Amino acid sequence: MKKLLILLALAQPSLLLAQNNDLPENTKRSSTCVPESDFPRYDDQHCAYFKVTAPDAHKVQVAVAGIQPLDLQKDSLGVWTGKTTPLPVGLHYYSLVIDGALVPDPSTYTYFTNHPVSGIEIEEGEEGNYYRPQLGIAKGQVRSVQYYAESTKEWRRALVYTPAEYETNSKKRYPVLYLQHGMSEDETSWTRAGLMHNIMDNLIGAKECVPMIVVMESGDINRPVSKPGDTNPFAGFADFGKTFYEVMIQDLIPMIDKTFRTKTDRDHRAMAGLSWGGRQTMEIVTSNIDKFSYIGDFSGALLLQNLKEDFGGILSRPDEFNSKIHYFFIGYGGAGDLGPSDIKALEGSGIKFDTYESPGTAHEFLTWRRCLRKFVPNLFK
Amino acid sequence: MKKLLILLALAQPSLLLAQNNDLPENTKRSSTCVPESDFPRYDDQHCAYFKVTAPDAHKVQVAVAGIQPLDLQKDSLGVWTGKTTPLPVGLHYYSLVIDGALVPDPSTYTYFTNHPVSGIEIEEGEEGNYYRPQLGIAKGQVRSVQYYAESTKEWRRALVYTPAEYETNSKKRYPVLYLQHGMSEDETSWTRAGLMHNIMDNLIGAKECVPMIVVMESGDINRPVSKPGDTNPFAGFADFGKTFYEVMIQDLIPMIDKTFRTKTDRDHRAMAGLSWGGRQTMEIVTSNIDKFSYIGDFSGALLLQNLKEDFGGILSRPDEFNSKIHYFFIGYGGAGDLGPSDIKALEGSGIKFDTYESPGTAHEFLTWRRCLRKFVPNLFK
Repeated sequence: MKKLLILLALAQPSLLLAQNNDLPENTKRSSTCVPESDFPRYDDQHCAYFKVTAPDAHKVQVAVAGIQPLDLQKDSLGVWTGKTTPLPVGLHYYSLVIDGALVPDPSTYTYFTNHPVSGIEIEEGEEGNYYRPQLGIAKGQVRSVQYYAESTKEWRRALVYTPAEYETNSKKRYPVLYLQHGMSEDETSWTRAGLMHNIMDNLIGAKECVPMIVVMESGDINRPVSKPGDTNPFAGFADFGKTFYEVMIQDLIPMIDKTFRTKTDRDHRAMAGLSWGGRQTMEIVTSNIDKFSYIGDFSGALLLQNLKEDFGGILSRPDEFNSKIHYFFIGYGGAGDLGPSDIKALEGSGIKFDTYESPGTAHEFLTWRRCLRKFVPNLFK
Repeated sequence: MKKLLILLALAQPSLLLAQNNDLPENTKRSSTCVPESDFPRYDDQHCAYFKVTAPDAHKVQVAVAGIQPLDLQKDSLGVWTGKTTPLPVGLHYYSLVIDGALVPDPSTYTYFTNHPVSGIEIEEGEEGNYYRPQLGIAKGQVRSVQYYAESTKEWRRALVYTPAEYETNSKKRYPVLYLQHGMSEDETSWTRAGLMHNIMDNLIGAKECVPMIVVMESGDINRPVSKPGDTNPFAGFADFGKTFYEVMIQDLIPMIDKTFRTKTDRDHRAMAGLSWGGRQTMEIVTSNIDKFSYIGDFSGALLLQNLKEDFGGILSRPDEFNSKIHYFFIGYGGAGDLGPSDIKALEGSGIKFDTYESPGTAHEFLTWRRCLRKFVPNLFK
């Protein structure tokens, strides 16, 4: 018994959470929960239930992205609980606010990178089958690859999806999609929150897209922290992620083409990104038109103002753009998302592009999972 | 400007953290910080500095594993700061305690899985070179592989380290080490906190060990949450991780041997684990002696009581054990760690084993990084 006590003492103090284990009736545990946790949960109306142990706190809230912060109620044991209004099927980010401190919920895995947040995934109905693993569909791999980038003099990491057949077709070469995350995220976002590996496996398995390699790296798009004396909160905003441009061209693409069996010509290289990663995509592709021939813009921050000046003016030269870019996709969530104003700016320009509006979603990964699904069937055909 | 405001509103609310940016003099930022964060930091005495924004909290503490909780002090802006006593070089887990709520610090990446915790890495001196990436050393990959386990009827994930030469030696087959985490952790612990990929790259690069594949899966060792009416907090303790035993033999090993170019005989298969993963290693190997020939026990919870009964009694049959197991390693931290009592129980038994005591470390990943470094040079020779 003494050694068991040592083991318990050495482990995480989760006994703090082991009180008051009544579960709300007819609710399911979110797949985002860490193994020992039974919360957050959701019911058949897709209302989410939260539980937080904070015995001495005066106010505990749950801030779910896109809805009003929810005030939790405290019981006599210092456990705070609450229930939201119905949420859409899929993944929702949230944070706890404990006496004014914005922190992750220790009950779930964490998402994002700048300021880790928690997540709840509502998993009901067939809508999400395309991003869930399916029996009978061969699974690809996601490989973590470290490399030294000469342009920034640092060790970096890329995550590389290889299709299931890559392991056995040892002579075949594959086209490559470079897939970027958004502001304040990193190279893990597309697998952790986007479940891109399942989406790709399912599309390739159903022969809805060609087998391809997908590369995810950090776009270095961290919001600049204001320095003492800064009065402009947007200082440095325009330079977001500029370090990545050189990394990608000088270091990342050569490393990928050396390490993996890729097709290296422009006709077999695509780039896509979400939010600020959409802007990075447009800047990198239009500055390196000899290297890319497909563009995916998912809720992208193109912020088009003047087609003659934006992105070197190439969007004002439709013949050139259309002859070089085989497919240009702009997807977005509801009307409040980034995307519609850029689409309006492109109307009548002669630029060829395809649009997709994700029903019932916003500037979030539910939109971008759907965008990926809609975009990749159009590549390399 | 309006669109910039939309972007800021859509992104994480990190402006909350953008106040009071004076940094303590002569301190360095921890490599565990998320990109936008400048804390935690450490000075040349290896004292750690923390900063937490919690304007309405009444008490904020930092609980660093192994030391007394540190009370932070609040300034007029609601920002809490504090400084620890000197810490050993390497990784230290910690949590925030905000008015009694144990939560991760949103300033760092998270570690563990059951109750995510934060981390600070003190990176000074040459001691840690063996777990840092080195120029001129070829890098292997860590591959995330999904598979469906028939024994538990669920989708599972293995992380598989392949050595750098695996990509180019397309005919060569490799021995395999199965490497398990501890209680309340998962398959990501050895890469996230253990940096096993760097340790393996550096050892293989220096020809101190043979190139091998290393497989990491979840041992399913989650502390059982007590149910209403439970009076014994240890209920279910002995069954920890038992589901994994069948998964490993029935599903995981066959999947690995089918997917990767492995050597599949017992002479080329090893298993090691830390803490409860050490116990799982001993249970699985001794129950499947036809499949394994090497054992690594890192601060393992063998909890030996009676060699004639423990683990089927094989430790009381030294001739059989020594003829089957080519190398048996027991490593541990200080005298308070798990390990010494098992070593004492084995003395005079005739069982051959090697021991290693990690100086100045405890039941933590600093010990286990060193154990891995000491253990793998003895494999497959």
